[in-house]
Amino acid sequence: MASGELTSVRSPRVKAARRLAKRAFRRRERRFLAEGPQAVREALEAPGRLAELFTTAEAESRHGDLVRAAERAGVPVLRVSGEVMAELAQTVTPQGLLAVCQFVDVPLEDALEPAPTLVTVLAHVRDPGNAGTVLRTADAAGAEAVVFTDASVDPYNGKCVRASAGSLFHLPVVVGPRFGDLLPALRDRGLTVLAADGAGKRTLDEAIDDGLLARPTAWVFGNEAWGLPEEILDSVDDVVRVPIYGRAESLNLATAAAVCLYASSRAQRAG
Amino acid sequence: MASGELTSVRSPRVKAARRLAKRAFRRRERRFLAEGPQAVREALEAPGRLAELFTTAEAESRHGDLVRAAERAGVPVLRVSGEVMAELAQTVTPQGLLAVCQFVDVPLEDALEPAPTLVTVLAHVRDPGNAGTVLRTADAAGAEAVVFTDASVDPYNGKCVRASAGSLFHLPVVVGPRFGDLLPALRDRGLTVLAADGAGKRTLDEAIDDGLLARPTAWVFGNEAWGLPEEILDSVDDVVRVPIYGRAESLNLATAAAVCLYASSRAQRAG
Repeated sequence: MASGELTSVRSPRVKAARRLAKRAFRRRERRFLAEGPQAVREALEAPGRLAELFTTAEAESRHGDLVRAAERAGVPVLRVSGEVMAELAQTVTPQGLLAVCQFVDVPLEDALEPAPTLVTVLAHVRDPGNAGTVLRTADAAGAEAVVFTDASVDPYNGKCVRASAGSLFHLPVVVGPRFGDLLPALRDRGLTVLAADGAGKRTLDEAIDDGLLARPTAWVFGNEAWGLPEEILDSVDDVVRVPIYGRAESLNLATAAAVCLYASSRAQRAG
Repeated sequence: MASGELTSVRSPRVKAARRLAKRAFRRRERRFLAEGPQAVREALEAPGRLAELFTTAEAESRHGDLVRAAERAGVPVLRVSGEVMAELAQTVTPQGLLAVCQFVDVPLEDALEPAPTLVTVLAHVRDPGNAGTVLRTADAAGAEAVVFTDASVDPYNGKCVRASAGSLFHLPVVVGPRFGDLLPALRDRGLTVLAADGAGKRTLDEAIDDGLLARPTAWVFGNEAWGLPEEILDSVDDVVRVPIYGRAESLNLATAAAVCLYASSRAQRAG
């Protein structure tokens, strides 16, 4: 046992971190958990975000650079036993590094300033893995902001944080607006608001060919199982569907979002 | 308890089905498990594929049409208790219907006949959820065949079957060829073989603009973590990368595949 290593899951610091697996505690503390060396690296690069770092001796020997960088940045580093890490981590095979981070979300008005050309909205997305994958894809496709509406999953959910593969720290994320409040704000910034939904009359290819995708765009993605509610479909500027050429009934939400976002990236850069 | 309902997990039929959770038994029996009403519906539409149907009384009352259709098709229907279904099912919240299906894969030469225009190859893909999502996306994008090389996950893995959302039954699937044997067969059928990899010198947009994607194409997708091995990258006709415009290090495998496959669909239909 390394000196100063915490070996009890009943240690107050460990208990405080463990509670962050629950949304109610995350909201109260405005802190969340991010596991693994990649997440720790990203959190370190986002000034003031890394609040506390838990590490096992084994992880410290593998990722000494990260642990030292955290210490240099004045971040409290807590050495814990493998058993304590297993209790803290939300993965089956914990990587031995766990960051307690400050919330990263920003107010809507900040995320839309200066006027963006590509925004991603998650409305009614409930699966945290899907939400994190869309966040990662939006980052890759060059989106300037990602908005989680009040009807979507919590972006600080552990599965969402993992699936985002660091992108949660990369671009402005907005949490919690109602769609009815969001829509006029997006339009005020000159964004055409497009919903991606299998019910769309216009295909993505038609939207590209018509020049629609070359405009500054906010894409709205809906629920994995049932898409978007009528009131959203009726209120946006257009509803676009990714064409299905084979016998699949639909696309997975995150793959449909990838096809839409990259179509916008290409159209905006070509235009 | 419904009459004739199996309530023991030690019943020989239940034990035989349970064993199919393991790859070795699947290969020996050439059978696999597919859960839920959608999978049962798809299996029923693929003649001779549905070998046995397990149902709970509750699922039968909700999906009586499917159970009756199976019985009309001469498929043995086994009524089981909720406890037995929970043992058989590989999901946390079983849907009460579980199909034992015959393997659906076909020989490579059959899958490539007549000469296809879009083929998907999974080489070194290890995560069954990713593999199933790529299969579903390939189906949606109009691919005519999907090949799982010997270094990839088993397409009959329960997670892969679920993620494919029925697409395993929709288009020819080939299992197990070595990449070295596959490559000349793809070229013989006039396919340009493109690897999707972050190491590619050519971006997807360049490949579209150069007319490369309008050709009959086999896309090769690699491992989630490390991509494709040198010998594959060196042997294909070109290595193409999906451009990263933001700060993400990479795309999730299934989302990258979606962007590539839909780019081919569009280019081939426009060309």
